[in-house]
Amino acid sequence: MSSLAAQLTALLPSATVLEPGESTSAYAHDESLLGSYPPHAIVLASSASDVQKVLTYAQSMRLPVVPRGAGSGKSGGAVPERGGIVVSLERMNRILEISPADGVAVVEPGVILETLQNAVEDQGLFYPPDPNSQAICTIGGNLAHNAGGPRALKYGVTKDYVLGLEAVLPTGELIKCGHRSWKGVAGYDLTQLLVGSEGTLAVITQATLKLIPLPRRAETLLAFFSSEDDAARGCQAVFAAGLLPRACELLDATVMQAVSGRAPFKFPEGVGGGLIVEFDGLDEGVMQEVVRAGEACQQAHALDVIVAQDESQRRRIWETRRMISPSLKAMRPDKLSEDVCVPRGRLVELIRAVRGIGKKHGLLTACYGHAGDGNLHVNLLFGSPEERKTSAAAVDEVIEAALSLGGTITGEHGVGMAKRGFVTRELGGEQIALQKRLKAAFDPHNILNPGKIFP
Amino acid sequence: MSSLAAQLTALLPSATVLEPGESTSAYAHDESLLGSYPPHAIVLASSASDVQKVLTYAQSMRLPVVPRGAGSGKSGGAVPERGGIVVSLERMNRILEISPADGVAVVEPGVILETLQNAVEDQGLFYPPDPNSQAICTIGGNLAHNAGGPRALKYGVTKDYVLGLEAVLPTGELIKCGHRSWKGVAGYDLTQLLVGSEGTLAVITQATLKLIPLPRRAETLLAFFSSEDDAARGCQAVFAAGLLPRACELLDATVMQAVSGRAPFKFPEGVGGGLIVEFDGLDEGVMQEVVRAGEACQQAHALDVIVAQDESQRRRIWETRRMISPSLKAMRPDKLSEDVCVPRGRLVELIRAVRGIGKKHGLLTACYGHAGDGNLHVNLLFGSPEERKTSAAAVDEVIEAALSLGGTITGEHGVGMAKRGFVTRELGGEQIALQKRLKAAFDPHNILNPGKIFP
Repeated sequence: MSSLAAQLTALLPSATVLEPGESTSAYAHDESLLGSYPPHAIVLASSASDVQKVLTYAQSMRLPVVPRGAGSGKSGGAVPERGGIVVSLERMNRILEISPADGVAVVEPGVILETLQNAVEDQGLFYPPDPNSQAICTIGGNLAHNAGGPRALKYGVTKDYVLGLEAVLPTGELIKCGHRSWKGVAGYDLTQLLVGSEGTLAVITQATLKLIPLPRRAETLLAFFSSEDDAARGCQAVFAAGLLPRACELLDATVMQAVSGRAPFKFPEGVGGGLIVEFDGLDEGVMQEVVRAGEACQQAHALDVIVAQDESQRRRIWETRRMISPSLKAMRPDKLSEDVCVPRGRLVELIRAVRGIGKKHGLLTACYGHAGDGNLHVNLLFGSPEERKTSAAAVDEVIEAALSLGGTITGEHGVGMAKRGFVTRELGGEQIALQKRLKAAFDPHNILNPGKIFP
Repeated sequence: MSSLAAQLTALLPSATVLEPGESTSAYAHDESLLGSYPPHAIVLASSASDVQKVLTYAQSMRLPVVPRGAGSGKSGGAVPERGGIVVSLERMNRILEISPADGVAVVEPGVILETLQNAVEDQGLFYPPDPNSQAICTIGGNLAHNAGGPRALKYGVTKDYVLGLEAVLPTGELIKCGHRSWKGVAGYDLTQLLVGSEGTLAVITQATLKLIPLPRRAETLLAFFSSEDDAARGCQAVFAAGLLPRACELLDATVMQAVSGRAPFKFPEGVGGGLIVEFDGLDEGVMQEVVRAGEACQQAHALDVIVAQDESQRRRIWETRRMISPSLKAMRPDKLSEDVCVPRGRLVELIRAVRGIGKKHGLLTACYGHAGDGNLHVNLLFGSPEERKTSAAAVDEVIEAALSLGGTITGEHGVGMAKRGFVTRELGGEQIALQKRLKAAFDPHNILNPGKIFP
């Protein structure tokens, strides 16, 4: 056992300390494919007190500490790039309380999102954030990255459901910020500052989340368009009809082609774009909304609109959505997905810009995702190592296109290691300097997840 | 002209500089009745550049600067307690853009909230925050205090509709944080940190706000209960029925008594509490929801439930709500209103604690407000100077009751001068120390709205 692991083991009788090696190789990377960086030790914390001890120790030794949930992030946020200690919260996975009376849940950071969703839905309550990784990702990771998902369109993202946090500062102090009540404005909103800070300001050890009544009914349509531009215009038409769907997902021509053979629907001739639109609420109103959305799509020149007639048809529409990623992999073995986001009115321009970038570099591109809030997953597909070589330039152009359309470099995946080279372009040097001063106010010796977010 | 005013006039050819005096006495106070503190000069800024010049100058002279909107705040946030320069944003009152395609509005901070609401509703769009002062308060003040209102129950508070900000730091730099897209997670969320920071971190000079489709229909009920405890239980029953109203306002026994003679409804015999519950959305669904809420109230022992049959009856229900404050003044000339907030399940306990505090001090008390999110306005009513003398002890006990029920000292009015004596009790010393380090990272010489928030 290394001397670091031995010291941590002595310090933390209730935690498990692991050493780098084959069996712990998962802790060296996340889902970003940005490389593997083994830490010097891994602590499976069992309590906030364990986390406090690790940080106090690391602070005195000036060792990097990287907090980690499920490692399902896509931006390298949980990668121990500079070695040091990985603090995994995976064992702090208790749902401490679900209170229908207060409309809150209190959870540890290691709770799997889907576990929480199922537990609250069993009580007629609803926790809306729904990143695609919900079956494996943890609440802690969702908090670190301010996770979104399709339903963010109507319901907002993770930050909108975080009322209070317990967190350990890099200096070892435990703070409790925010509140259990649904409202509260005492002092600076550290809760909102910690959400999305990618584990660089504090290690979250408990969260109080807002729960709302579970919608009783969801109604879904799948609209086919002759082009992806028309599909983007269909999205606008739904909003122009005065409707706020809970999800509005776009599928471009490449995506429609990729999924057409596998989808449980026969796609119409000449299809070049699709839109999945979903509403929820109480009984009668929901069907009325989905019907109006279908009319709006038809007026926006949809080739056909399928309104799901029952729950199984509704599930099949969402299956089509989930098939996208494997279907694209079947078209080309390798891909890069850029999580840009633009104002909704600029979607057509973004899609066109991506087509142009693909053409210029001889790459197949695919756009899909949360069109209603302008957050498209722009995929660059590679069939050969030669194509892969063009990726850096093509990614740069996609990012630049999003920024020039008034958008952002990342809608929901975070900066981490993946986007730190671009962050100054979006925020500007003065804001970066201010953000670094804030980082120093939390973490004077830069031990907590160092090197992430900033260029 | 004072030498300060002369220097500011020379520095700011496009702004108007005023000196303290009778005609400018309004700038010495807000609606908090915490006293009048004349500033040394008042600058009516016309641009972000004016604000930058004032802050750069004040920074070099170490002069306090206090940003101000309409002065309608209730916590002393805009009061120039230490003199210095008031920067009024009232002339920066342009709605720069309303974009239905992007679902955003871009506004200057001096825009009156109601002006914005009307302008966006004319285009079929909706900006939900609705503090009671909406006819006079400015967006800048709403941002500074993270304003709420009845509709916050379903739609959230101001922070949930702020996408991006342009702001001047105390050191004079202009930063742009956030984004125009509905989502974005690049870097720390300074937008959310500035919202609710009560003008102590930066002067906001422009805001990009999220707009959603305007609900087509609202339906409202007024339920009468024999006691205020039953009314609070009625609120729980509405949520337990799986409903999320856009507003759920409670009126306690004192309030019902105060308004009964003036209300446009005959109150039933033995009424001791009331609940106003409102839903919105598309057509059919909304009426269904209000009917279910009425049933829930009846099962929770309501004496009677009036569901508004038309828009004029709906308006009359809300008139009843608006009569509360003047009606209480008619009962007792003087009152203190404490804006505490507790978890919804603790409402009955809060109301009982307030009754006990009133009894103990021989004071009439009245509770009303946003029961759905646990944010009650607790009023202590005074008929004589002798009664007023008990106010400090009674306020302290109300605050302590809220905190002991897991609540907060302020749900939506802010800390300012009014609550700074209590803020450590809620946040704890370690968090206060951290918040002060953040303040210093923005404002190293503590010139911007000094003395507010912190004890």
